[in-house]
Amino acid sequence: MTDFFQDLKPLRFDPDGADLAFRHYDPDETLMGKRMEDHLRFAVAYWHSFAWPGGDPFGGQTFQRPWFGDTMELARLKADVAFEMFDLLGVPFFCWHDADIRPEGDSFAESRRNLEEMTDYLMDKMEGRKTKLLWGTANLFSHRRFMAGAATNPDPEIFAWSAATVKLCMDATRKMGGQNYVLWGGREGYETLLNTDLKRERTQAGRFLQMAVEYKHKIGFEGAILIEPKPQEPTKHQYDYDVATVYGFLKDFGLENEVKVNVEQGHAILAGHSFEHELALAAALDIFGSIDMNRNDYQSGWDTDQFPNNVPEVALAYYEVLKAGGFTTGGTNFDARLRRQSLDPVDLVAAHAGAMDVCARGLKAAAAMLEDGTLETMRAERYAGWDAPEGKALLESDLESIAASVEADGIDPQPRSGRQEILESIVNRFV
Amino acid sequence: MTDFFQDLKPLRFDPDGADLAFRHYDPDETLMGKRMEDHLRFAVAYWHSFAWPGGDPFGGQTFQRPWFGDTMELARLKADVAFEMFDLLGVPFFCWHDADIRPEGDSFAESRRNLEEMTDYLMDKMEGRKTKLLWGTANLFSHRRFMAGAATNPDPEIFAWSAATVKLCMDATRKMGGQNYVLWGGREGYETLLNTDLKRERTQAGRFLQMAVEYKHKIGFEGAILIEPKPQEPTKHQYDYDVATVYGFLKDFGLENEVKVNVEQGHAILAGHSFEHELALAAALDIFGSIDMNRNDYQSGWDTDQFPNNVPEVALAYYEVLKAGGFTTGGTNFDARLRRQSLDPVDLVAAHAGAMDVCARGLKAAAAMLEDGTLETMRAERYAGWDAPEGKALLESDLESIAASVEADGIDPQPRSGRQEILESIVNRFV
Amino acid sequence: MTDFFQDLKPLRFDPDGADLAFRHYDPDETLMGKRMEDHLRFAVAYWHSFAWPGGDPFGGQTFQRPWFGDTMELARLKADVAFEMFDLLGVPFFCWHDADIRPEGDSFAESRRNLEEMTDYLMDKMEGRKTKLLWGTANLFSHRRFMAGAATNPDPEIFAWSAATVKLCMDATRKMGGQNYVLWGGREGYETLLNTDLKRERTQAGRFLQMAVEYKHKIGFEGAILIEPKPQEPTKHQYDYDVATVYGFLKDFGLENEVKVNVEQGHAILAGHSFEHELALAAALDIFGSIDMNRNDYQSGWDTDQFPNNVPEVALAYYEVLKAGGFTTGGTNFDARLRRQSLDPVDLVAAHAGAMDVCARGLKAAAAMLEDGTLETMRAERYAGWDAPEGKALLESDLESIAASVEADGIDPQPRSGRQEILESIVNRFV
Amino acid sequence: MTDFFQDLKPLRFDPDGADLAFRHYDPDETLMGKRMEDHLRFAVAYWHSFAWPGGDPFGGQTFQRPWFGDTMELARLKADVAFEMFDLLGVPFFCWHDADIRPEGDSFAESRRNLEEMTDYLMDKMEGRKTKLLWGTANLFSHRRFMAGAATNPDPEIFAWSAATVKLCMDATRKMGGQNYVLWGGREGYETLLNTDLKRERTQAGRFLQMAVEYKHKIGFEGAILIEPKPQEPTKHQYDYDVATVYGFLKDFGLENEVKVNVEQGHAILAGHSFEHELALAAALDIFGSIDMNRNDYQSGWDTDQFPNNVPEVALAYYEVLKAGGFTTGGTNFDARLRRQSLDPVDLVAAHAGAMDVCARGLKAAAAMLEDGTLETMRAERYAGWDAPEGKALLESDLESIAASVEADGIDPQPRSGRQEILESIVNRFV
Ligand SMILES: [Co+2]
Ligand SMILES: [Co+2]
Ligand SMILES: [Co+2]
Ligand SMILES: [Co+2]
Ligand SMILES: [Co+2]
Ligand SMILES: [Co+2]
Ligand SMILES: [Co+2]
Ligand SMILES: [Co+2]
Repeated sequence: MTDFFQDLKPLRFDPDGADLAFRHYDPDETLMGKRMEDHLRFAVAYWHSFAWPGGDPFGGQTFQRPWFGDTMELARLKADVAFEMFDLLGVPFFCWHDADIRPEGDSFAESRRNLEEMTDYLMDKMEGRKTKLLWGTANLFSHRRFMAGAATNPDPEIFAWSAATVKLCMDATRKMGGQNYVLWGGREGYETLLNTDLKRERTQAGRFLQMAVEYKHKIGFEGAILIEPKPQEPTKHQYDYDVATVYGFLKDFGLENEVKVNVEQGHAILAGHSFEHELALAAALDIFGSIDMNRNDYQSGWDTDQFPNNVPEVALAYYEVLKAGGFTTGGTNFDARLRRQSLDPVDLVAAHAGAMDVCARGLKAAAAMLEDGTLETMRAERYAGWDAPEGKALLESDLESIAASVEADGIDPQPRSGRQEILESIVNRFV
Repeated sequence: MTDFFQDLKPLRFDPDGADLAFRHYDPDETLMGKRMEDHLRFAVAYWHSFAWPGGDPFGGQTFQRPWFGDTMELARLKADVAFEMFDLLGVPFFCWHDADIRPEGDSFAESRRNLEEMTDYLMDKMEGRKTKLLWGTANLFSHRRFMAGAATNPDPEIFAWSAATVKLCMDATRKMGGQNYVLWGGREGYETLLNTDLKRERTQAGRFLQMAVEYKHKIGFEGAILIEPKPQEPTKHQYDYDVATVYGFLKDFGLENEVKVNVEQGHAILAGHSFEHELALAAALDIFGSIDMNRNDYQSGWDTDQFPNNVPEVALAYYEVLKAGGFTTGGTNFDARLRRQSLDPVDLVAAHAGAMDVCARGLKAAAAMLEDGTLETMRAERYAGWDAPEGKALLESDLESIAASVEADGIDPQPRSGRQEILESIVNRFV
Repeated sequence: MTDFFQDLKPLRFDPDGADLAFRHYDPDETLMGKRMEDHLRFAVAYWHSFAWPGGDPFGGQTFQRPWFGDTMELARLKADVAFEMFDLLGVPFFCWHDADIRPEGDSFAESRRNLEEMTDYLMDKMEGRKTKLLWGTANLFSHRRFMAGAATNPDPEIFAWSAATVKLCMDATRKMGGQNYVLWGGREGYETLLNTDLKRERTQAGRFLQMAVEYKHKIGFEGAILIEPKPQEPTKHQYDYDVATVYGFLKDFGLENEVKVNVEQGHAILAGHSFEHELALAAALDIFGSIDMNRNDYQSGWDTDQFPNNVPEVALAYYEVLKAGGFTTGGTNFDARLRRQSLDPVDLVAAHAGAMDVCARGLKAAAAMLEDGTLETMRAERYAGWDAPEGKALLESDLESIAASVEADGIDPQPRSGRQEILESIVNRFV
Repeated sequence: MTDFFQDLKPLRFDPDGADLAFRHYDPDETLMGKRMEDHLRFAVAYWHSFAWPGGDPFGGQTFQRPWFGDTMELARLKADVAFEMFDLLGVPFFCWHDADIRPEGDSFAESRRNLEEMTDYLMDKMEGRKTKLLWGTANLFSHRRFMAGAATNPDPEIFAWSAATVKLCMDATRKMGGQNYVLWGGREGYETLLNTDLKRERTQAGRFLQMAVEYKHKIGFEGAILIEPKPQEPTKHQYDYDVATVYGFLKDFGLENEVKVNVEQGHAILAGHSFEHELALAAALDIFGSIDMNRNDYQSGWDTDQFPNNVPEVALAYYEVLKAGGFTTGGTNFDARLRRQSLDPVDLVAAHAGAMDVCARGLKAAAAMLEDGTLETMRAERYAGWDAPEGKALLESDLESIAASVEADGIDPQPRSGRQEILESIVNRFV
C-alpha cells in the first residue's frame, strides 16, 4: 500500500449520504433485468487521473504527484496508486494509452520493452481484482514526432512508427484481456489547408485503419475496434469530425461492419451536436460502441473534459444507450480531468464518486422512462401514418405516380402539434 | 420597362472606377484559357433579391417593393424587374424556388398551374437574353405544412406533397434549360430528439433522394442533382449537416455517383468549417458541384447570407474550385440578401456589382497562385516521401511487417517545419 | 368565456401527478419564511404567448389564433383569452409591450388612443383577479421605422417617436399598477460599424435613459426602471451587451442608482456567460432587478427563447437570486415561446405549467442549499485569510511596503485545492 | 553573434519582392505626415518568440532552442538571439514579462536579483540599438502559486506576492525606458462560481490596480498603465472580459483617467466582438492605448495567437486607430506565436516580416480611406439631423414635451437606406 490516499476507505453505497459514499450507485441494484454495474461498466482513465500534471496553455504543472517522472520505478508506483483508487471506487474497468503506463524509451525497441514490462506489472495487479481493461489505445499525438499527424503524416516514417505502435498496443490490449481497442486521431487533421493534401491524408488514414482491422483478425483479438470522433483541438480540423463523418469514412474504406465509435460528450458539443444526438445517430447507423462520459463547459470553446454533473443531460444520454440495447463490449469511461486547482488526493476520489452517482441517477431515470413507455408511445403515434399500408407503399412509389395522386386525391396535409414542451415535462417527471 | 431601377444603365467594366461600374469583373478577360464569365458563372438568387421582404425574428418587412403580393400580375411584375436587373448586371444565370416565382394557389393543382404559367413567362423573357437558369429548386420549408419537414415528415401526406412538388420543379427546371437541380433540406432535421425517429426520417430522406434521381433519368434531365448542406437553422439539427455528412448519406443510399453538393460559405461556417475546407473535401470525395457565394458574419451564430466582401477569403475558395477543375454545370450563385436597412433599388444593384468584383479579384488571385505554382510545389515536396517506392510499399504492407522493420531499421523520424506562416505570406503576394 | 381553451380546468397542486397539474409548484408552501408564490413571482409574457405567429427566418406563421389581426375587437378577444390562461395557471403577474396589446394606428395619436383604450380594457379584466402587471415596455424594434434603432437612430425624428412612446408606455404601466418598467434595446446597436457613429449613438442612448428616469420621478412612478441586456440579434452588436456593459453605461450617465437589470438566461448565454454569472454580477454591482426565465439551446447561436427545463441550472440561478435577497419589485417572467410546431392550446398551458414546476423545483433546491449552509461555509473558509487583520491591512497598504515585507518575511505562498468537483457533488445532493 | 539565424541578413524594403524582404513595410514612407515606422510602432513579444516551447494541451515541446533551460547563462543567450532578430527586422520595440527574461529563483529575492541582472543585460544590448521597450508586464499566471488568481486570489499571501512582483516589473520597465506598463489578468477570474466570491475578488482587483497607479505616480513613471481585456481562457471567466467591462471597472474604482486598454484581436473575437468594434469603443470611451496585433482562427474557440494575415481586416483596425489619433505611447505588439510545426529559425523571421507587411498594407489602406474622406462624409450625412438645431434641442428636452410635439406635428418618420453594401464596396477600393 502506498500512502497516497492515506486513510480513505473503499466507498460503499449509502443512500443516506455519509461523506465519500455512493448515494445512488448501487452496483447490485437491478434495472431492466441487469445489474447497475453491468449496465454502466465504469472505467477510470489512466491518463487524466494519473498522468496529467495539471497544465494548461497558460501555466504548467499544478499537481505534484510522487510518481511523476520517467523511470520504470515511478511507473510502477503510479500503477500501485491507480489500483488503490480502482479498489476504493470498486470500478470494473480502466483504460490506458501506452504513454500513460510506461516511460518513453530512447528507441522504439526500448519503448516496446517498457510497455511489455509494465503490462506484465499491471496484469499482476489485476490478478485477483475485479478491475479489468475496458480498452487500450496508442498515444500518437503528444511526442513532437507526431506534430503533423500519425497515419496522416506527410512523412511515411511516422506512418510506420505509428503503425508499429498500434501493433504493440493492440497486442498489449489483447494480452490484458481488453474488451476494445480505441483510435483517437488527435493530430489526424491539419493546421492549415495551405500545406495539406486532404485527399492523400484521408487515404492514408483509411489504409491505416484497414491494417488495424486486418491485424485484429490475424491475432484473433475479440474486442471491438472503436474510433473516437472529435472535430478539432489540438488541430484546426480533425478528419474524424463527428459520428456522421466517421460513418462516411468507414463506408468509403469498407469498414462499416468492422469499426464502431466511442462517443464523447465534449467532442459532440465541440462539433455542434448534443451528446444524445451523436448517440442516437451512432445507433441508427449501427456503429454505436462505447462512451466517454465527460462534459465540456458550454461557455468554453475548448475541450475541458470535466466530470459529468448534470443528471437530466446524462439521463438523455443513457436513454439512447438503453434504446440501442445497452453496452456490449463498450462502457462508461470517465475521460475526465480534475480541474487543475483540485490538488488533493481526496478530490480525485470524490470526483469519480460524484460522477458515478450522476451516472447512476441518469441511468435509473432512463430506465424508468423506457419502462414507463410514454415517450416511445408518443413517438410511435407521431409516425403511425408510415406504418399504415399507404405509408409503406409510398416509399416504394415514384415521383410521377405520387404527383398524379396528390392532384387526383386533392390532398391538403395539415400540420399536427410536435408537443415538444409536453415531452420535456414528461422527461422531467423522471430526472 | 418598369421604372424600378429608374435611370440606371447597364454596368460596364471600368477599372478606373466610375460609380456603379465593374472595376475588376471583365467577362471577357481570359484566365487559364477561359473567359472570366465562364469561370465564375454568376447567378442571381430570385428569392433574396426579389421575394424577401426584409424581416427578421424581431421585425417585419422593411422593403416595400411594388410587386409584393400574391397575384399572378404581381408575379409578372416581379419577373420584369428581375430581368431588368439581370440585364443591368449582365449576369449569365439566375436561380429560383417555385415559391419565388409563382403565387401559392389554393390547391396543389392551382399552384402547379401558376408555376407552369410563370415558367412560360420567364422563358419568354429569357428568349433573346443571355441570362439562363443555373438551377431550380422547391421551397419545402416556408409553408406551415412543412413545419416538421418535407421528405422527413412524420406525416406521409407531406412526403407525398413534397415529392409531387419536386417533380413539378424538376420538370420546370428541365423545361427552362436549367443546368442543375438543387435540394436544400431546410426543415429536414428536428427541433427535439424527444419526438423524432432519427433512423426512420433518415430512411425517408434517402428514398426521397433516390426517387428524385430516378425521375431525373426517366425524363432525361441532363443537369446535375445537388444537395446543399447546412447544419442547423431553421431546425436545431439538419440531416445534411456538412459535406462529410452528405457523403456518408449518399454512400448509404448508393447515390455517391449521382448527386453532388452545392456548398455555401455561411453553412460551412455554421458547421465549424472554413469554406475552403468544404470545397477541398467535396473535391476529394468527387462530389463537388456548385457554390453559394455569400458569407456569414463571424460574430453571429445565425445565417446572415451577406454578400461576399473579403477578397483573400474568396481567393482561397476559388483556388479550391480551380484545383477541382472549375465549374462544369455549377456556378457562383449569390445566395445573398441585402441588409434589411438597404432599402433603395440602387443598393440591390450595387451589392451584386460589389460582390462580382470581389469574386473577380478572388478568381484572378487564385489563378495567379495556381500558375505561379509555388504553393503546389511546396505541398508536393512535403509529401514527397509518399511518392518514393518505400512510401508506396508502406501502404501495401501490414502492421506486423511494419513493426518489424521499424525496430530492425532503428528508425527515429524527425519532424520538419510545416512552414504555415511562409505559405500565408506567399498567398498574400497574390491577394 | 371564449372557447379557446375548451374544457381545461384551473391547474391545482397535485404532487401525485395528474396530467396538467403542478407536481412541484405549490404557491402556499413556505420557504425561508416566504410563500413560494411570493418568491417566484411568475409572469406570463403577452407577446410570445398571444402575439407571436410562429414564424422564423425560413417560414411564416404556423399558429392560427382566432384573435390574429389588427382590429380593436380582436385585441379584446386576445385579452380575453390571455386572462383565461392567467386564471388557468394562477399566475400572479403578466407583462406586455404596447404592440402586443393594441393594434398599431395610422398615426401616433391613433396608436396612443388604442393603447389607452386597451389598457382600460385590461384593467377591467384585472379587477377582481389576482393577476397583476409585473412590467410594461415599449416595442421599439418591430416596425420598419425602428430598423436603424430607436434612441440611437441617426434620425432625430425616430428618437422623438421613441421617447414619446416610452412616455405613453410608462404612463400606462403606472396606470395599471405595474411594478417595473423595462427597456430592451432590440435595435440599439448596429449592423455595420461602417455607417455607425458609436460614440454619438451611445450618448443618445444615455440621454434617452436619463429622460426616462426623470419622467419616472416627475410622474411619481414607484416601480423600478430595468434594462434588459442582450449582446446581439437582431443587430450584429447591441450596446446593452451584458450586465457588465450596462453597468459601465449606467456609471457613465450617472444612473447606477436609478436603473437595474432584467437578466435573461438566453441573453447571458449569447454573451458568453452562464445565467448564474450574470445574476451574481448584477448582485455584486447592486443592480439586480428581475429575470426572464427562458433558455437558449446550447447548440444554436440564436435566441430560441425556450421554456426552462433543466432543474439543476435553474436551481443555480435561484441560488443567486436568494443570495441577492430575493425579488423586490422583480419576478420570474417567462419570456418564452412555444416551439412553432406546438400548435395546440393545451401546449400553451402545459408549457407554462412545466416551466413553473421546473422553477419550483429549482427554488426549493436553492433554498435547501442556502439553509444547509455547506456551500457558503466552504466559500467563506476559502477567503478566510482576507478576514484576518493581516488580510484587511494588506488592502490598505502599498506596493512598496508589500514588496519589502514579501522579501523580509520570505513568504512562499502555497496553493490550496479549489475543490470544484466536491462542490458540484454537494449541489447534486439538492437538485 | 550567435549562429541561430545563420546567414540571414537584415531585411530591406524591396517592393519587387526578393525572399525575406519587406514588400510593403517601408519605415520611412510618410503617411498623413508621419513616418510609417512611427505610425505602426511594431514590437516583438519576447514570450511567444523566445520563451514558448511549442506545447499545446495534447502535446509537449516541439521547438528545441539552444537557450531553453533555467540558468542565467541561457537567459543571456536567449537575449542575444532576441536582439539579433530585432536587428534583422529593424523593429523599434519589444515587450516582456519578467518570466520571459529571467529564470525563476528559489525565492522572491532571488527572482528579483535575476530580474535586475537580466534587465541590466538587456539595457546593455539596447545601448546603441534602435529597439526600445514598448512595455513590460508581470507573468502572474504560469506558476502554480497563481492557479487561483493573483490579485483576486483567495489567499492574501498571493496578493502580496503579486503586488510585490508588479512593483519589481514596473521598476524594471521604468529603468529600461518602457513606454507603458501592461496588466493582463490571466487568472483573474474563476473556474467555478461555486467556490468564488465575485464581489470580494472584484474589490481586490480594483484595489490592486489603484496601488499600481499610486506607485506609478510615486516613482514618476511616465508611461501609460494598460489593461488587456480577455473574456476567458485559461479561466472559465475573466473579470477583464472586454473593453466595455474594463470601462465599468475603471469607473467603479475611479481609474478611468489613469488606465487605458491594450486591445488584442484574438481576445475581441473570443468575447464576441470584431477587433474594430473594441478599438472604436475604446476610442469612444477615451481609454484607447495600444494593440496586440495577432489573430484567432474563426473556427477555433480558443486563443490561437496567430500572426495577422488578412489585409482587409487589419485595414479596418488601423482605420479605427487613425481615427482615434494614432498611437501615443502605444504601438503594434505582435502577441503572436509561430504555429508549433514552424520549427525553423527562418519561420520566426518570416512570420514577423509577413505580419509587418500585412500591417503596412492595412495602414496604407486605412490612411487612404481617411484621406479620401468618402466614408466619413457618408457617416456624417447619416447623422446630419442631429447637428441641426432641432436635433440638438431634442437631447435637452424631456419625454413629456417630446410626446406633445410628436402628436402636435403629426410626425411620421421614414427609414432611409443604411447603404451597408455600398460602404463595403468603398472599403474594397482601398484594401
Ligand atoms: Co475530450
Ligand atoms: Co475521449
Ligand atoms: Co445560407
Ligand atoms: Co444557399
Ligand atoms: Co431572448
Ligand atoms: Co427577455
Ligand atoms: Co491572446
Ligand atoms: Co495579448
